[in-house]
Amino acid sequence: MPASPMPPEPPQTLDNPARRTLLKGGVGAVAALGLMPLIPVARASLDTLPDYVAWKRQQDLILHGRETIETQRGAIRSGVVTPSRTLFVRNNLPAPDPSINDDPDAWEVAIEGVNNPRNLTVAELKRMNVTSVASVLQCSGNGRAFFPHGASGTQWTVGAAGCVVWTGVPLKHVIDELGGPADGVRFLTGTGGEEIPEGLDPKDIMVERSVPLEAMETALLAWEMNDEPLDLAHGGPLRLVIPGYYGVNNVKYVKRVALTEEETEARIQTSGYRIREVGVGGSPDQPSMWEMNVKSWVTLPLESAHEGRNLIYGVAFGGTRNVDRVEVSLDGGESWQDAELIGPDLGPYAWRPFVLATELSPGDYRIVSRATDEDGNSQPRERYENERGYLHNGWEDHGVTVTVA
Amino acid sequence: MPASPMPPEPPQTLDNPARRTLLKGGVGAVAALGLMPLIPVARASLDTLPDYVAWKRQQDLILHGRETIETQRGAIRSGVVTPSRTLFVRNNLPAPDPSINDDPDAWEVAIEGVNNPRNLTVAELKRMNVTSVASVLQCSGNGRAFFPHGASGTQWTVGAAGCVVWTGVPLKHVIDELGGPADGVRFLTGTGGEEIPEGLDPKDIMVERSVPLEAMETALLAWEMNDEPLDLAHGGPLRLVIPGYYGVNNVKYVKRVALTEEETEARIQTSGYRIREVGVGGSPDQPSMWEMNVKSWVTLPLESAHEGRNLIYGVAFGGTRNVDRVEVSLDGGESWQDAELIGPDLGPYAWRPFVLATELSPGDYRIVSRATDEDGNSQPRERYENERGYLHNGWEDHGVTVTVA
Repeated sequence: MPASPMPPEPPQTLDNPARRTLLKGGVGAVAALGLMPLIPVARASLDTLPDYVAWKRQQDLILHGRETIETQRGAIRSGVVTPSRTLFVRNNLPAPDPSINDDPDAWEVAIEGVNNPRNLTVAELKRMNVTSVASVLQCSGNGRAFFPHGASGTQWTVGAAGCVVWTGVPLKHVIDELGGPADGVRFLTGTGGEEIPEGLDPKDIMVERSVPLEAMETALLAWEMNDEPLDLAHGGPLRLVIPGYYGVNNVKYVKRVALTEEETEARIQTSGYRIREVGVGGSPDQPSMWEMNVKSWVTLPLESAHEGRNLIYGVAFGGTRNVDRVEVSLDGGESWQDAELIGPDLGPYAWRPFVLATELSPGDYRIVSRATDEDGNSQPRERYENERGYLHNGWEDHGVTVTVA
Repeated sequence: MPASPMPPEPPQTLDNPARRTLLKGGVGAVAALGLMPLIPVARASLDTLPDYVAWKRQQDLILHGRETIETQRGAIRSGVVTPSRTLFVRNNLPAPDPSINDDPDAWEVAIEGVNNPRNLTVAELKRMNVTSVASVLQCSGNGRAFFPHGASGTQWTVGAAGCVVWTGVPLKHVIDELGGPADGVRFLTGTGGEEIPEGLDPKDIMVERSVPLEAMETALLAWEMNDEPLDLAHGGPLRLVIPGYYGVNNVKYVKRVALTEEETEARIQTSGYRIREVGVGGSPDQPSMWEMNVKSWVTLPLESAHEGRNLIYGVAFGGTRNVDRVEVSLDGGESWQDAELIGPDLGPYAWRPFVLATELSPGDYRIVSRATDEDGNSQPRERYENERGYLHNGWEDHGVTVTVA
């Protein structure tokens, strides 16, 4: 999703032709890419799951590409905790070699920008402290497919999102143990453990993200997802998890966590994941993709329904805030009814399944949902037009048209 | 676990010799079994998972037998929601043919003992109403291995238990839709869909269980577990779930739910799952295995730990009541410290992971945990001695001895 390109290896034989051309171009193409922020990325598709996610349930997924795998809208089901086998995947770079998970406890992360910086192994982190947090993981570009200007990047509809349980050590605990933040720091910066191919400027492609320092209060260094050891596909052995923030900030195979005075100069931060008008290039003075906004969508029914009583299902979340209310409209937003939030409440960063029971007579229905968070923020009707198709929480585009026969 | 025997098919070639002899005996052996309530069931083991659970994670499991598969104590990890691949399995009879899940929506359940009894398909249930409930699923005999008198049945230690999310229609909603309970009913009776071999009296082996009518208020007819369609191994297409009640009451492949004036006369109810003194046979005047009691156990460390700071992990639950407090002792119960409950609270029927951070110097430690529910019920020190090894929540037996080097 960022303007930052893919590295020239490994061969992406199943990927889309446009990207393949870039990859063949190597360093030159990477340099050129800086001048081409609007390169259209065609929809690509695979026939079968790549090896590194072969354990997932293919029928629940849409295979856009090797590193971009979406959850089917209808696969969310009751929506409490998204099964790992159903969860979307989005990598900014190909994952490191799977051998990094042979001995996950040996993985090291450097903690910097504290008064007593040091490296810590996962084994050491596991003895420091632990908590579990349910949190929505959502790609910044979820909903991009609804932008009419053809925003470049994977054409996600609603399935670049899931709600999972992370387990790890509260980052704040680690920082306190290392003497607390160094003077003057304002950001929390995480660096991914992907290999950077030789000949490229690391800044151009490395996954290194900065978020405001306040995120330190809720962040985790996580070694489990959904009560299982964190798989390579989702960032194992160790992932920086920032509940309520867009996926890109949740740095996988995290090898360095630094409290910094400035945001990183990596392209994925300086020009990638920035909100700007259509046709404008990315720059550091534009808003970055940090906290998620309030959002919801219907997951069932999707195309057809029976005459008579039906249950309209969906999920709703508020980023860093609890969902307070979800309304559903059967007539494209002319009239609204309150839906019921169901199931256990997993906390402010989780999503809530909702359901509305209703009688439907034959005809076509435009079913839309609108969530409101505890601070009174509601989903707008319209999308916020922006170059990269980020932040989409407009309820109109997220509706479904259902025929009752 | 009940005295009720297994049917003579299918061939249990990998099972234990004692049971195989019985199975060969057919009807005669079944009749004889009525006179032999104390038949010892030897520990059996399989090399690999049976086909119907081949999708599970074998390294997380202990294979006692084809229908009795335990979760490893160390596989619970953060303990929020037990992954389906890690969850224990216990069948009283071999499951029906997997083809019953080819079209789960077509499965029918008869609802009786209401003013307007009728059959309902899963598809119809799905349009009536829905909720999700997190609940501990635990076999009545969990902890049986700790009984010194050699209680017959699978020698479960702590792993015939897990905490999962069930999704389905509240049974109360279904009953209300069918005109409410008929006059005079006092029990909720569920009947499993297993095939009963010809030549046997169904009452001798059928899985039919009755619980007090009040359980109707919280019961579900569930078609999902952990946000996935309910697998055959766990009772799909449809399971009667009674949150906070022992596993046997959660009838799999449920084909009939009846509100009844009396308890079922099936052996699994009349003599099976009854609490009585050692050496005494089962009878209907003894307490039945209904609501679960308050319980906890340590899941990490199990044998050894490092010198210095350690986290003691475990899980605790209160049956139908919230857990209020968990204490941990490092000296076999001489002194206690409060542990911290961590992660999201999934409601009264779920378990809570707990953790205690402590400094350990070299030596041997007897680590035990003791939970107290919101009504002030605490785990006792001792087990309650009983013939079949049920109800075990004594904290002493559930401890672990850990060597710190």
